[in-house]
Amino acid sequence: MAKHKLIFQPVGAKIEVEGGANILEAAAESGIYINSLCGGEGVCGKCKVQITRGEAKPTSQSIRFLSREEINSSFVLACQTEVRSDLEVWVPPEARLEEEQILTTESMVCYQSPQDLEIKDTLDIPSLLYMPVTQKIYLSLPKPSITDNLADLDRVFREVRKKIQAPTLEISLGSLRSVASMLRENEWEVTATLYPIDDHCVEILSLEPGDTCAENYGIACDIGTTTIVAQLVDLRSGAILGVEASHNQQARYGEDVISRMIYACSRGGLSPIHQAVVETVNTLIDTLEEKHGVEAGNVTALTAAGNTTMTHLFLGLEPCTIRLEPYIPTANFLPSASAAELDLHVHPNGRVTCVPGVSSYVGGDITAGVLASGISNSAQVSALIDIGTNGEIVIGNNEWLVCCSASAGPAFEGSGTKCGMRATRGAIQKVVIDSEKVHYETIGGAKARGICGSGLIDTIAELYRNRIIDSSGKFPRASAHPRVREYEDDMEFVLASGDETETGKSVVITESDISNLIKSKGAILAAMRLLLNNVGMSFEDLERIFVAGGFGNYLEVEKAIFIGLLPDVAPERVKFIGNSSLTGARMALLSRHALARAKTLAKQMTYIELSVDPKFYDEFVAALFLPHTDMDLYPSVKRVMGG
Amino acid sequence: MAKHKLIFQPVGAKIEVEGGANILEAAAESGIYINSLCGGEGVCGKCKVQITRGEAKPTSQSIRFLSREEINSSFVLACQTEVRSDLEVWVPPEARLEEEQILTTESMVCYQSPQDLEIKDTLDIPSLLYMPVTQKIYLSLPKPSITDNLADLDRVFREVRKKIQAPTLEISLGSLRSVASMLRENEWEVTATLYPIDDHCVEILSLEPGDTCAENYGIACDIGTTTIVAQLVDLRSGAILGVEASHNQQARYGEDVISRMIYACSRGGLSPIHQAVVETVNTLIDTLEEKHGVEAGNVTALTAAGNTTMTHLFLGLEPCTIRLEPYIPTANFLPSASAAELDLHVHPNGRVTCVPGVSSYVGGDITAGVLASGISNSAQVSALIDIGTNGEIVIGNNEWLVCCSASAGPAFEGSGTKCGMRATRGAIQKVVIDSEKVHYETIGGAKARGICGSGLIDTIAELYRNRIIDSSGKFPRASAHPRVREYEDDMEFVLASGDETETGKSVVITESDISNLIKSKGAILAAMRLLLNNVGMSFEDLERIFVAGGFGNYLEVEKAIFIGLLPDVAPERVKFIGNSSLTGARMALLSRHALARAKTLAKQMTYIELSVDPKFYDEFVAALFLPHTDMDLYPSVKRVMGG
Repeated sequence: MAKHKLIFQPVGAKIEVEGGANILEAAAESGIYINSLCGGEGVCGKCKVQITRGEAKPTSQSIRFLSREEINSSFVLACQTEVRSDLEVWVPPEARLEEEQILTTESMVCYQSPQDLEIKDTLDIPSLLYMPVTQKIYLSLPKPSITDNLADLDRVFREVRKKIQAPTLEISLGSLRSVASMLRENEWEVTATLYPIDDHCVEILSLEPGDTCAENYGIACDIGTTTIVAQLVDLRSGAILGVEASHNQQARYGEDVISRMIYACSRGGLSPIHQAVVETVNTLIDTLEEKHGVEAGNVTALTAAGNTTMTHLFLGLEPCTIRLEPYIPTANFLPSASAAELDLHVHPNGRVTCVPGVSSYVGGDITAGVLASGISNSAQVSALIDIGTNGEIVIGNNEWLVCCSASAGPAFEGSGTKCGMRATRGAIQKVVIDSEKVHYETIGGAKARGICGSGLIDTIAELYRNRIIDSSGKFPRASAHPRVREYEDDMEFVLASGDETETGKSVVITESDISNLIKSKGAILAAMRLLLNNVGMSFEDLERIFVAGGFGNYLEVEKAIFIGLLPDVAPERVKFIGNSSLTGARMALLSRHALARAKTLAKQMTYIELSVDPKFYDEFVAALFLPHTDMDLYPSVKRVMGG
Repeated sequence: MAKHKLIFQPVGAKIEVEGGANILEAAAESGIYINSLCGGEGVCGKCKVQITRGEAKPTSQSIRFLSREEINSSFVLACQTEVRSDLEVWVPPEARLEEEQILTTESMVCYQSPQDLEIKDTLDIPSLLYMPVTQKIYLSLPKPSITDNLADLDRVFREVRKKIQAPTLEISLGSLRSVASMLRENEWEVTATLYPIDDHCVEILSLEPGDTCAENYGIACDIGTTTIVAQLVDLRSGAILGVEASHNQQARYGEDVISRMIYACSRGGLSPIHQAVVETVNTLIDTLEEKHGVEAGNVTALTAAGNTTMTHLFLGLEPCTIRLEPYIPTANFLPSASAAELDLHVHPNGRVTCVPGVSSYVGGDITAGVLASGISNSAQVSALIDIGTNGEIVIGNNEWLVCCSASAGPAFEGSGTKCGMRATRGAIQKVVIDSEKVHYETIGGAKARGICGSGLIDTIAELYRNRIIDSSGKFPRASAHPRVREYEDDMEFVLASGDETETGKSVVITESDISNLIKSKGAILAAMRLLLNNVGMSFEDLERIFVAGGFGNYLEVEKAIFIGLLPDVAPERVKFIGNSSLTGARMALLSRHALARAKTLAKQMTYIELSVDPKFYDEFVAALFLPHTDMDLYPSVKRVMGG
């Protein structure tokens, strides 16, 4: 395809693009950020630019945003106009975004994960006003002389003030110590990394030689009890460069949150378990940096979301009081820290921020999820269910939010089940049982290695539908199914025999596994019913249900309803949003406004402590069946299975 | 004298005082701070209190501030009312100062040094609104419960907000780490040390067990090239508990500023010379803490003033560029740091603040001097001359300030002269030569050990007056004076023979010493003339001359004029204000307003670089005589010595 040259005035930025690219994207590529509230959908009319040389015609869709005079003067909407020839484009001031105000949307992000794409239309676009935690600016300083004898720091401040608005500029003593030689050894040409503390005060985190503005990266991190996921993000464009996940190395000190707290508060102390999570995060950072050729020194911000215990352990805060009544964390709103304080493998002065939480059992991961799901942006009453280790639930809309934790356990994360695994290559993620035959799909089409969350849900649903297990999740004493067998005092169902698997061992689901999974789903369903009850509502009132969690990508809503993990609502009301903790963390990394929003949300959410509610146990017991003791709550299942 | 009991209502604070004490002082002693803008002079009328039991009559001076009704209701001005019987005093809310607003004046400070007392009437009282760098408050927190389940940090913040106004509260991750156990191990009764960063934001530096509000101390420090002086200050009352001084241990790396810079920037590197000043300060801190029974952990703030090089070396900043044209420091406005960053022997989270400077050769010590001298509070044109190592001069009033550095050298600090010493015990501080007899006084009346600044000035003046030296400072080739002798290729005058001294060695002044001192005084006088010249003024225009420096306490103005160190003005215009760098540092320690004032002053002062002024050398050479080449500038000396 032909290449065309574009020049953007009044700045004079030049770029060469392939024919067919739109002007909005071309401008962004050249470093000119044009206002586009709608993210390039052609529906906000903010990206009006004038074609001053070359030809481009407005599309019919854009005409409604342009006056006759503007059309005659060759104005177009940048996002709706394809480049078909060399162009000179004049960007009027009102259409131009200053670097700090750049708007990005999830849809502009070049990431491939279905979970991430899934989520895009629920993102709160205006709140994502692009202003990352840190920003780099290039400074070419005039050399000092007897007549211009400002101190080095004042000289730097003077130059920074020409580029950004900041009533107060700050620098730490540690960073100041290298300023004199940094300036002189680099001919007074340096790049400053800025950290806007608030609207008034900007801290200079570091100076480095030359112009490194093109290299400013951040890490968004979901610190799960079972799994830790990190994304490498280009802070300039908002693009996700890569993602890595790993088991939380803390698992060696205990599989669940409670056993890790006990370890930290008695036997082993906080230090090893704090180190373990930091090491896990560092391993992910190292891999991301290596794979994408990014130097640690160019990663200047890390934003993490995790449950309250994980956040405490990550920051080296004692988690002990979280575990015991009245369940008090040290802090829900965590101070930001330098990377050096936590020994993270990024720039030592890089800023580490944690998304704030609500209480000991509704942490920053849930606040991040609310941010990402956008349930607080709409008048519709929605639920967010995070089926991670704890099973947290948030219900509400743009006026109110209530939340609770179900203590569901990590069964759907693949933990605590015999062949459970994370949703990675080789995990069985989709299962259909047709009488004696089992059809399954693995992630990546690889040989089976185990079962991930969606595979477990499918399996239980299929076993129940085929009546291979009963509504209490048990295999009948004398099961004649050829795939059901007894093994080490437990009954199990063989999904894949050893000759089909990578390990040579069968992939199975045991009766104990099923019992664990039923307990998990029961806790979640019971918690949701109780939370709704607290606000005088029932399942029917939920207009949308967002399900977050680390299962595979093909989880079928019908099957989750079939086993009673979700209420029996119309399947189109349910949306899987994948790892919304990670998405929310990335939003807070890319936008100070999103972080501010997260703080407001965390303050707004009313936490309800289920453990002191006597009705919880009754609800829980009633939910320990497939799909529920009260089949009238599940008419769709009743139709299939009978009452 | 009889003792009387006072009780202050509505607080109920009790105190027993001697008859004759005034109510304002008695209140302060009992911990009740009454508003008194004028510092107890009876001229502001702010300290109205009501005598509710006992008898006290208003003075005639105070009647003008009291209405008839108030007089009938036994209102008096606290500062104008002596205690003559037991009293109950009601302090109305408008007369009561909250702890943050307490006004202190140098005159209320219980310090004994004549220099310190000397300075009191020049202090800018309203600017000294008492608000120390750090403040302690006691928190008795309600224990958490299921219904009051705020996180620990929010619980602390809630309680702090009941006591102080602070839109934003902050804590560092490091301090947060111990909060949970601190609260629980101390039954939720703790003391918070607060550091108000600005009007909006207060940082909690630390929490400690129980109520330690009574123990909050600060260190004010003058970091001189030759001598370092530190004061231990009670931050609650403003009282100076003690003062210690010591040679700057950096001297081992070079006697003067330049040689230390050369050392730091080439041979030895910054580290040893930075360590040396920190060690010197630590030795002083250790001594002060030990002598006064103060624990390091209760010292929560340190404020230092020093010249720009000393400040850089203290903070570990490279001083190299200060020495070379165009003489640029890393910073004049220094970031505050934690004591731990500098390894100072106070609370590790204690705040270390440096008084800001103006340029490479007019540092924070001079800003502190301007603050302490108050020259910027009056319309009168005044000069501040700091005869320390550099010999800095500031001229101006409340509208303008110009300053320069004379690079005079440390001769008047006792350094670089054979028997020179600091103004401590055993230093000859006063000398009268009566033909062949020498009368001298030593500090503390001890056996002579050496000569301090005032002793050196006296000696030269007396030698010249007695024509033992000529106007160029030389002993005549064939001097017949019995106390003049030749020793090691130099001529010297014996002030005290070995049998009178502590060391058994003679205390002498040599021809080289005199030559050094004349160079120092010549540089200062030349700089002052040039600075005045720059603003179109001459000596006669100076309405007040404040002389700061570390000489003895009995420096005679007439003798300083006689040798040509000071211009020939009426002696009553000259005031010795001692170590004004230390006084200014203490002001900045005790009052955030004073620190803010110092910042404004540092910005206001116009620095004039003498080294590039071709007239300076001529002026300097002309001043290398006793008192000056041009005797018409010194009519008072001409009258004595002839023209």
